[in-house]
Amino acid sequence: MSGTRTSGRRGAQDGAGGAAPAAVRVTFLPDGQSATAVKGTSLLDVAVEAGVAVDAPCGGQGRCGRCKVTVEGDGVAHRPSAHLSAAESEAGVALACQATLEGDAVVTVPPPRERRHRPRGHAVALPEALPLTCDWRQDPAVRMLDLDIEPPSLTDNTSDFDRLQRALLQQHDIKQIRAELPMLRRLGRDLRMANWKVKVALEMRDWVYGAYLPPRLIRVYPSVFGQRSMGAAVDLGTTSVVAYLVDFETGRVVDSESAYNKQIACGDDVISRIVYARRDGGLARLQRLAVETINELLIVLQERNRIENYEIHEVTLAGNTTMTHLLLGIDPRFLREEPYIPTISVPPGLIASELGLDANPLARVHALPCVGSYVGGDITAGVISSGLYATEKLTVFIDIGTNGEMVLGTKDWLVACACSAGPAFEGGGVGCGMRATTGAIEDVWIDSHTLEATYRTVDDAPPRGICGSGLIDLIAELFVTGVIDKGGHIRKGLATPRVRDGLGGAEYVVAWADESDDGRDVAVNESDISSLVRAKAAVYAGIALLCRSVGVALADVEQFLIGGAFGEYIDVEKAIRIGLLPDLPPERFSFLGNTSAMGAYTALVCVNSRHDVLDVAAKMTYVELSADNAFMDEYTSALFLPHTHIDAFPTVAALLAADGANGVPAKEDA
Amino acid sequence: MSGTRTSGRRGAQDGAGGAAPAAVRVTFLPDGQSATAVKGTSLLDVAVEAGVAVDAPCGGQGRCGRCKVTVEGDGVAHRPSAHLSAAESEAGVALACQATLEGDAVVTVPPPRERRHRPRGHAVALPEALPLTCDWRQDPAVRMLDLDIEPPSLTDNTSDFDRLQRALLQQHDIKQIRAELPMLRRLGRDLRMANWKVKVALEMRDWVYGAYLPPRLIRVYPSVFGQRSMGAAVDLGTTSVVAYLVDFETGRVVDSESAYNKQIACGDDVISRIVYARRDGGLARLQRLAVETINELLIVLQERNRIENYEIHEVTLAGNTTMTHLLLGIDPRFLREEPYIPTISVPPGLIASELGLDANPLARVHALPCVGSYVGGDITAGVISSGLYATEKLTVFIDIGTNGEMVLGTKDWLVACACSAGPAFEGGGVGCGMRATTGAIEDVWIDSHTLEATYRTVDDAPPRGICGSGLIDLIAELFVTGVIDKGGHIRKGLATPRVRDGLGGAEYVVAWADESDDGRDVAVNESDISSLVRAKAAVYAGIALLCRSVGVALADVEQFLIGGAFGEYIDVEKAIRIGLLPDLPPERFSFLGNTSAMGAYTALVCVNSRHDVLDVAAKMTYVELSADNAFMDEYTSALFLPHTHIDAFPTVAALLAADGANGVPAKEDA
Repeated sequence: MSGTRTSGRRGAQDGAGGAAPAAVRVTFLPDGQSATAVKGTSLLDVAVEAGVAVDAPCGGQGRCGRCKVTVEGDGVAHRPSAHLSAAESEAGVALACQATLEGDAVVTVPPPRERRHRPRGHAVALPEALPLTCDWRQDPAVRMLDLDIEPPSLTDNTSDFDRLQRALLQQHDIKQIRAELPMLRRLGRDLRMANWKVKVALEMRDWVYGAYLPPRLIRVYPSVFGQRSMGAAVDLGTTSVVAYLVDFETGRVVDSESAYNKQIACGDDVISRIVYARRDGGLARLQRLAVETINELLIVLQERNRIENYEIHEVTLAGNTTMTHLLLGIDPRFLREEPYIPTISVPPGLIASELGLDANPLARVHALPCVGSYVGGDITAGVISSGLYATEKLTVFIDIGTNGEMVLGTKDWLVACACSAGPAFEGGGVGCGMRATTGAIEDVWIDSHTLEATYRTVDDAPPRGICGSGLIDLIAELFVTGVIDKGGHIRKGLATPRVRDGLGGAEYVVAWADESDDGRDVAVNESDISSLVRAKAAVYAGIALLCRSVGVALADVEQFLIGGAFGEYIDVEKAIRIGLLPDLPPERFSFLGNTSAMGAYTALVCVNSRHDVLDVAAKMTYVELSADNAFMDEYTSALFLPHTHIDAFPTVAALLAADGANGVPAKEDA
Repeated sequence: MSGTRTSGRRGAQDGAGGAAPAAVRVTFLPDGQSATAVKGTSLLDVAVEAGVAVDAPCGGQGRCGRCKVTVEGDGVAHRPSAHLSAAESEAGVALACQATLEGDAVVTVPPPRERRHRPRGHAVALPEALPLTCDWRQDPAVRMLDLDIEPPSLTDNTSDFDRLQRALLQQHDIKQIRAELPMLRRLGRDLRMANWKVKVALEMRDWVYGAYLPPRLIRVYPSVFGQRSMGAAVDLGTTSVVAYLVDFETGRVVDSESAYNKQIACGDDVISRIVYARRDGGLARLQRLAVETINELLIVLQERNRIENYEIHEVTLAGNTTMTHLLLGIDPRFLREEPYIPTISVPPGLIASELGLDANPLARVHALPCVGSYVGGDITAGVISSGLYATEKLTVFIDIGTNGEMVLGTKDWLVACACSAGPAFEGGGVGCGMRATTGAIEDVWIDSHTLEATYRTVDDAPPRGICGSGLIDLIAELFVTGVIDKGGHIRKGLATPRVRDGLGGAEYVVAWADESDDGRDVAVNESDISSLVRAKAAVYAGIALLCRSVGVALADVEQFLIGGAFGEYIDVEKAIRIGLLPDLPPERFSFLGNTSAMGAYTALVCVNSRHDVLDVAAKMTYVELSADNAFMDEYTSALFLPHTHIDAFPTVAALLAADGANGVPAKEDA
């Protein structure tokens, strides 16, 4: 099974001479990129390095079987895989991650099914949608100050820097400033080119160590240039990355842009990326890909708003703990190895040039603090921007994605945990699953009498698969119409052609081949349903556990705040029916959108909120679920629809009782 | 005169095609280094880049005529020069700085006359010679602390950094520390490799901004390794560089090393180097050469003391303003252009990796603050280490070299100025001048009756020339014996074969050809004497001007402290006779040795002295001499031996009166 099969003459034996490793050349079709690599290099690595998008959700571990490519010629050696049929092997199909280059090769890469599209759910945040609670004009992060400096003379030979400080004291009552070496290296020229009439960009307050350091000089502009002063707030998600461009004159978001995280080429989820980081050069590559992703957004924002990169004077970043570690180039391995320890929770003070960000090289970069291995800066950002940190009400804040992170508390206390929901909510691990891009089924209704399905797709395109929110809808509908039982099994003998035996067992067809994009039926089977049930069980168990850990009842939760891009598309009622969300009155739920980006924005503009963020991170108690047997109990109880204890879901129980009319009452036993 | 002469076929016309510049190859004999360069590159630049030592005191401006090389073949184009005789041109001799490579070439470089030797005057400073006035153990710059850290567990999942902080609080009562990104990138691994039993190196106090920042983490060592904690104090001189290795356990200097500043390849004095820095890549090269010079010293110290570079946890540096700007890569051009303004006086907080120093990459590097364009960190260091900053006595501190820097004051006030003494004190600008290396005449006595000379040379080797201190001796002897008059002219008709007419006019032969190293007479002529007189006049005028500027009489100076390597070799009595030093009682003079290096050492070990240094730099009033007509008056008056106003030199006047016995009484008029 695991032996190496060498394709043809130019095989591995060529490399046995002990000489310098031979270079081979590979061309990727259909786009025609070509790359040179050392013989023996993984085909996936070469593709990633060459910027060729190969689908590799598991990050090249050989587990997912998604990175199929077609190889021409005999320059590639690859392992057999259960993911490859005999016909595929015959046709030259290989898993890129399990193939090595042994000679020159031409490789055809199928178009990635989903990544051609911009991620949804990240529309431009309108300024009015982002209320600022601070009086930021009183205490701005960055100030632009006009200075008319007395030119030096033989009788006034103070140094350039001291002269600048003297003018700041005289004209703006600022006693002392700081400057780093790159600024000092250009200061003499900058002052003279401006003929001593300048506008200086100053970072007014340092944030990280709680020390009140003097303001820091970011740039000296000639007064006549009329420079702008901007900032960037970045939500660095595992899947999507969003950047807001903020004008420090108005405090408002003037534009935004989003893209998929280029790290996806190294794995879909954080675990795959942590595994990838263990490879030779893997960490450096992930760091670079994160920076490249952000930089492409910043460049679009700069061009569209006609500013130069150096006019971005400050950057805030919110990401989960793994994303934060990777962006900073800190090895994330101990996040994955028991007992799951981050190297840092509060990132140090950084400047843009240290990370390679395409902003002013001296722009301060604030990465928001993390709480634990799986509760990161995106969550502290969310706790700030959702208002949880300031409320008296008992509140749950939840951000659902590949991981579900949840926080319970009030302004006085906070507990948090994270659970691995698996990829089901993002369309992964499900036969017909896909991201919420064009053609994804996102809403489903099933007629309780005919069991016929009606659906809506993203962009109203012919269906190509089902996204996470569509899957929740579908499972909820299948459950309340009795197509599946509380154990998630499809009932036999129903009077509908949509239920049938497929290759993977019993399945329900949502869209027929003649409706779909690729001419194949879109269907879910019991294995798909089980993936989603495990995902929702993990989330619900996490929430339940938090309540249990502090001795409050779920029913007492006064506010249930849902952040994150995925959250926006959840139908609360249906999420309650499958037991993903607790059975609370609908008015207690709120959808907040991208709370991570909003928190980064708040931290960018409201300097004082940075202390709130630190305070939140310090105050929050992180509950490590893998240490907790009670979590396994909760999880096991939640593996049913909606839950083992139906009493906890009174509205669902009532609905099922009423729905008895459809002739397929829920069985008591799976 | 200034046309370009192309040697031979492979001339400049080859480069006219507009194609990419062609590469040419040059081999340097006798050592055989070879280098590739773009056609048209200056031969001197290629030599410097290839590490070939070519003598070029003027920094390649074509002024000094020292960079003579012999070219074989026809690959080199060069300008004619007044420095080249017809015979030399015929023999293929060219000035490297005025020659460009137009084809492949073989170039023979004569051995530099002086640079094979280690600079003198920088013996290892013995610990007892460096008294520390501070209680440095109470307030150490760097501490090494043992920590036994509780390993993480599922129920104690604090981040690595917070866990380290917690242990520091519990075991050493240190509340918070800082760490930079490179430290955090290795922290997780370092802690686990040490099995959580570590020794941490902490920078205890930040110095630059007056802010009390938390201690900063420099390194985490496994407890079992028994690491040492060392520091380096560096005197970065224009000519010589000295490094002390200091053990932070004992506070003592354990070793020292010195070398010529590699920047000498780009010019002997600061002005030549500032000119050189204007070239394409010139500043970067000067920065690199300074770092390379320091690194070679650090490597010798590391190897000799069996430590690793990362065990050097802190570095202090004292250099003049130009050296400080160049080391930091800050363009020094405005130091040379009127009104002579430095970009910075207080260098920012740096770490070793920012400069490329071969120490712990996170070691703090403190460059001592400067006062003005020509009063730098070496002088603030001197004011500290000489005790001037703490004395009640009216004191002059002086550091004589290519530039003379002088400070007048007490603990309550300080005025400083700098004058360009020219190269005479370092053996430059004088026909037979040389540095104080093997074979340099350093002491001279002339018999007042026979006018015969007796001399002593460095290492008692056959004489090769006269060094600066020897020249002072010689001129003083020539003056008091009446060989020269107060205008520096050699008297005619003296009854000695040593006075004769040479090619450059009247001269006095110190050593005959049969005694000398190269079989040629060693002699000084009136032009040489004039160089020294101008140098001594500049120094004396500077001292006199400082006194005048604050309204004190030179005779009231209670202490006259002489720092610098050159100063150690001055004979005070003879220096007074020529009017270099004021005519004060001998007991008021003290020679302090390398006060710059000692100041760097004090700043390294005594953290509080860093505030003194800042205080000194802030307190000192810098008098720009070029703005001062009074200086020109003083200078003109000092252009006689010992001075126009002989009343200011009563002991010399008495000596001359007594010396009338030698039959050649000093004339009243030159």
